[in-house]
Amino acid sequence: MTRTEGRGVKQRGWIVGLIAAGALVVVGILVGTGLLGGSGGAPAANGVAKAMVPPGELDEYYLFASGGHSGQVFVYGVPSMRRIRTIPVFTPDPALGYGYDEKTKEMLGGLTWGDVHHPALSETNGEYDGRWLFVNDNANNRVARINLKTFFTEQILGPVPNIMGPHSACFVTPNTEYLFMGSRFATPIPHGTYAPLEEFSEKYKGVLAAIKIDPETGHMSLAWQLLLPPWSFDLGDAGKKVSDGWHFLTTYNTEEAYETLEVGASARDRDYIVMFNWREAEKAAEEGKYTLIDGVKVIDPVEVPGIVYLMPVAKSPHGVDVSPDGRYIVASGKLQPTVTVYDFEKIQEAIRNGRIAGHERGLPILDYPEVRVAEVEVGLGPLHTQFDDKGYAYTSLFIDSAVVKWKLGEWTVVDKIDVHYNPGHLCAAEGDTVSPDGKWLVSLNKMAKDRYLSVGPSHPESLQLIDISGDKMQLVYEAPVDPEPHYAQMVKADKIRPEVMFMKDPNRPYSVWDVADARIERNGDEVHVYMVAVRSRFVPDRIEVNQGDTVYFHITNTDMDQDISHGFGIPLYDMDVQVEPGETKTVKIVADKPGVFPFYCTNFCSALHQEMQGWLLVKPAQ
Amino acid sequence: MTRTEGRGVKQRGWIVGLIAAGALVVVGILVGTGLLGGSGGAPAANGVAKAMVPPGELDEYYLFASGGHSGQVFVYGVPSMRRIRTIPVFTPDPALGYGYDEKTKEMLGGLTWGDVHHPALSETNGEYDGRWLFVNDNANNRVARINLKTFFTEQILGPVPNIMGPHSACFVTPNTEYLFMGSRFATPIPHGTYAPLEEFSEKYKGVLAAIKIDPETGHMSLAWQLLLPPWSFDLGDAGKKVSDGWHFLTTYNTEEAYETLEVGASARDRDYIVMFNWREAEKAAEEGKYTLIDGVKVIDPVEVPGIVYLMPVAKSPHGVDVSPDGRYIVASGKLQPTVTVYDFEKIQEAIRNGRIAGHERGLPILDYPEVRVAEVEVGLGPLHTQFDDKGYAYTSLFIDSAVVKWKLGEWTVVDKIDVHYNPGHLCAAEGDTVSPDGKWLVSLNKMAKDRYLSVGPSHPESLQLIDISGDKMQLVYEAPVDPEPHYAQMVKADKIRPEVMFMKDPNRPYSVWDVADARIERNGDEVHVYMVAVRSRFVPDRIEVNQGDTVYFHITNTDMDQDISHGFGIPLYDMDVQVEPGETKTVKIVADKPGVFPFYCTNFCSALHQEMQGWLLVKPAQ
Repeated sequence: MTRTEGRGVKQRGWIVGLIAAGALVVVGILVGTGLLGGSGGAPAANGVAKAMVPPGELDEYYLFASGGHSGQVFVYGVPSMRRIRTIPVFTPDPALGYGYDEKTKEMLGGLTWGDVHHPALSETNGEYDGRWLFVNDNANNRVARINLKTFFTEQILGPVPNIMGPHSACFVTPNTEYLFMGSRFATPIPHGTYAPLEEFSEKYKGVLAAIKIDPETGHMSLAWQLLLPPWSFDLGDAGKKVSDGWHFLTTYNTEEAYETLEVGASARDRDYIVMFNWREAEKAAEEGKYTLIDGVKVIDPVEVPGIVYLMPVAKSPHGVDVSPDGRYIVASGKLQPTVTVYDFEKIQEAIRNGRIAGHERGLPILDYPEVRVAEVEVGLGPLHTQFDDKGYAYTSLFIDSAVVKWKLGEWTVVDKIDVHYNPGHLCAAEGDTVSPDGKWLVSLNKMAKDRYLSVGPSHPESLQLIDISGDKMQLVYEAPVDPEPHYAQMVKADKIRPEVMFMKDPNRPYSVWDVADARIERNGDEVHVYMVAVRSRFVPDRIEVNQGDTVYFHITNTDMDQDISHGFGIPLYDMDVQVEPGETKTVKIVADKPGVFPFYCTNFCSALHQEMQGWLLVKPAQ
Repeated sequence: MTRTEGRGVKQRGWIVGLIAAGALVVVGILVGTGLLGGSGGAPAANGVAKAMVPPGELDEYYLFASGGHSGQVFVYGVPSMRRIRTIPVFTPDPALGYGYDEKTKEMLGGLTWGDVHHPALSETNGEYDGRWLFVNDNANNRVARINLKTFFTEQILGPVPNIMGPHSACFVTPNTEYLFMGSRFATPIPHGTYAPLEEFSEKYKGVLAAIKIDPETGHMSLAWQLLLPPWSFDLGDAGKKVSDGWHFLTTYNTEEAYETLEVGASARDRDYIVMFNWREAEKAAEEGKYTLIDGVKVIDPVEVPGIVYLMPVAKSPHGVDVSPDGRYIVASGKLQPTVTVYDFEKIQEAIRNGRIAGHERGLPILDYPEVRVAEVEVGLGPLHTQFDDKGYAYTSLFIDSAVVKWKLGEWTVVDKIDVHYNPGHLCAAEGDTVSPDGKWLVSLNKMAKDRYLSVGPSHPESLQLIDISGDKMQLVYEAPVDPEPHYAQMVKADKIRPEVMFMKDPNRPYSVWDVADARIERNGDEVHVYMVAVRSRFVPDRIEVNQGDTVYFHITNTDMDQDISHGFGIPLYDMDVQVEPGETKTVKIVADKPGVFPFYCTNFCSALHQEMQGWLLVKPAQ
């Protein structure tokens, strides 16, 4: 560590002297070259053994990681860091036939990708309850719900009106009443409105949407929105325990710059933490204190006081994180070597006593000295903070390529460890709950450089596993990850109780459970095939249609054994789905190509899988 | 092991009694339920340590695994079994923008998936040379070439005329002169021809295509085809050393059944190994001994003797594998408890002496006793065989859920180990070369059942790592894998020499290397944006167009540092690409939606990545 710390110090002095947006561009370049990237020293040899899960044994935690612009969610086991599953969410995936059957095709709405940033597990009383996982699409203004009984995406909501680039999502309230999504990109609203950039401050709007979640089904619906200044809302966290009912957002570009942002959005020394009382906002919506914009109830907090307050923070903050007890709010100006800690009790006191330092955009600014309890010097590029069960906080340092451990209340740094390289977010075991486990910490690193066998110009990102159970952090293991790990949540394995197959439901529309009921029905030029897939046959296995027919295949997998999934692929018709045990899926093709097309099981199912095949014969139109 | 072997024996007696296609259906079901699936016993505790690669250290081998109906290739490191990269091949992937830029979009030809089965590394003198990886698309009759300098897909050939379901691909010759792809599904040819199934034996054809590979560029072109009976050509292997110049294929359904194949295709006791002399076929093509079908030179081996011979084999064989010295050809009838070994010298002798036992479909059948040197009783469901450096062969047993080790020449089984569960193929270190390393063996298991944390009804498949360096095989580690691992090849890491970025090329069409040259050019309603992406800006960052314009973005990443890839995403326009250091990509959109659309860097690039953003303003049509 000595070499690293030595360099760390040199580097800190060097950078603090330069600290300014322009300089940060230089820093960015040095980071890219690896000059500031950390040493790559291996851990104590015994460390790696902690990540070893022998054959036949199971991992202790699930890690749900955002797949970034892959549009998907990756499921890892911890501590082995093995990627167990890719859950398709916003991008079609023929491996499961996601986006190929009629139901998921409709859910995707013609879009073929998304930008998944921040997964949020559903919570009950501030604890992960293992029911659902919510993720945002930063590109297309959507949110999705994954059912953790099936690990399948069940609902996609959006594109949500008036919202553009909801980077500050998904963050759920302690009982999953809401998830909030705030715009990173201000635009004229409603969408479709054109206004020149010169009218940015006047006509471009920041918006936050409150997505209501049904406590029984998890169904998401758009409840109301807050009209905000044309700032970039970056990340968020819900209050919990003492701060339950409030939500916190970081914002940058309060300069309202719209060109060369890497300079323009860093001109001021301070940006804001935007905090709002969602129960008050809910009440305002009920009381009709809103304007309908594109069909949505939009509340202007300037006209409805008591909902939104601003707290000054060092410029261009990234993470804002609420401590497990709900008392402390930790924010990091990414261009400052410190994290700022606010005390929720002082915040409430300042609000009660009207300690307002001024207003911006008509929104009240709380008096900084009144609400801030500490500025902890942690190192360069603090981005995101997680917590353990012993009163410690862990902050990622993007520029230092390190994780720093510090003590809440005492505000002192107690440990620091190199990661490789340039961490964004951190993920601690049960880290966003009211009772973190304090066992594992995963550093989601943006650069891997030379840490893995080279795979050409496009490098993997990297997840590094750190043991935080002792006084000193220990780097244990590292795993490459596909683009791009923005955020992750880690939950105790026994909280997730998946179903290993679907229940047989004789009343399910289009399902067929007995080969005797398998059939082909024609209605004009529409053909419906009611098909059974059972080891190792398709029944019927011979479908004759006319060129131009629309053919629906309603396929039921009647193999009620776990792990016996059947595939259904048709060459040259660009069709592939997977049908799980007990599941029924409907796919549609237009038989526009004449000739003979064998269809076959694309997912290995039994000793005679290779023989599981049938024929689609398309008679040429005369 | 005792418990397992005990059950193994019981199970063998039970199944041999039943051995018949009908019974195999039952077996398939039992396999599915796990009753025959093996015990899952953990290995000696010290085993797992062998798979441990501490942070900062690199793996010893690359493993290239087929992604099955995901359409992609997965790159793993061995022994850690970490998945380092997903290489998009037949399926669009927004993580890299594959299928979104104009070049890759055209390469995919409107198809959105493929079924990757058998990756083949290019070879020189029978050794992997680390230049290219070839993979087949079993669904859409295509083959693709991945450049191992960039790990990007460079060429997709096909859909190939007359070929349907080329399961028996890709298998390359020892100097990569050719790769061969044989039809698994006989159909009327040329494609588009309709013929009822009742005319299967008469009008449906099996076809094998020879794909010529340019020794300098790796460019693939369709050279000639062989007209074969309407049988299912399953797997293959090229002769090497003494057998160089010959190619071997397994075939099933010589019964020519076309309905209820799981019974019909297993009616006869014997199918065939189809062997052909590709140099003789090449000569026939040069001498004009072919018929043009759909523009392809199709050679009928019945009319050109000396090219194709048949060797009897136990029914429904899967793998056919040539020993490193080229002398032995090992085939496994998957419904038999034995593997059959043929001796190439005896084969040549039989051909010279005209020891023909008869003909089928006009093709000569070599006399089985004359060419077969051994039938090794290995266990139930033998599918595929790999080799080591000490004269041992390793055969996967699908039904026994085991891998058996046996001695070439002595034909004796020396070891057997459980895997979990139901292995398909095996992959040994440098296993398909003339000099395998004899170090690692990976079992590609079709079922995982309860081996990993549950992810719902759709289970992962499983890769199990076995140490074969000692007398006894040792199970070391297991890793889950996305659907679906059909085959893999493992190459020594130092044979792969990737480039970590693209070279700056001022003459590259559409490239811009100086922000001063960045510009927007309009030509009627076509707009060309010559854009530079450089930390942390897009230049230009403000694009104003009219609704209905066609907009081309030519984006050059001028950050010449490894791992500094920029993304380019446009909300609601369904566009995302990644541009690697030194790369230029062109994307096109039709600006049909009016309003303001921020575009942004979707791939983390620097401390000011979040500020790397620009604007597309689309003026509404009046």
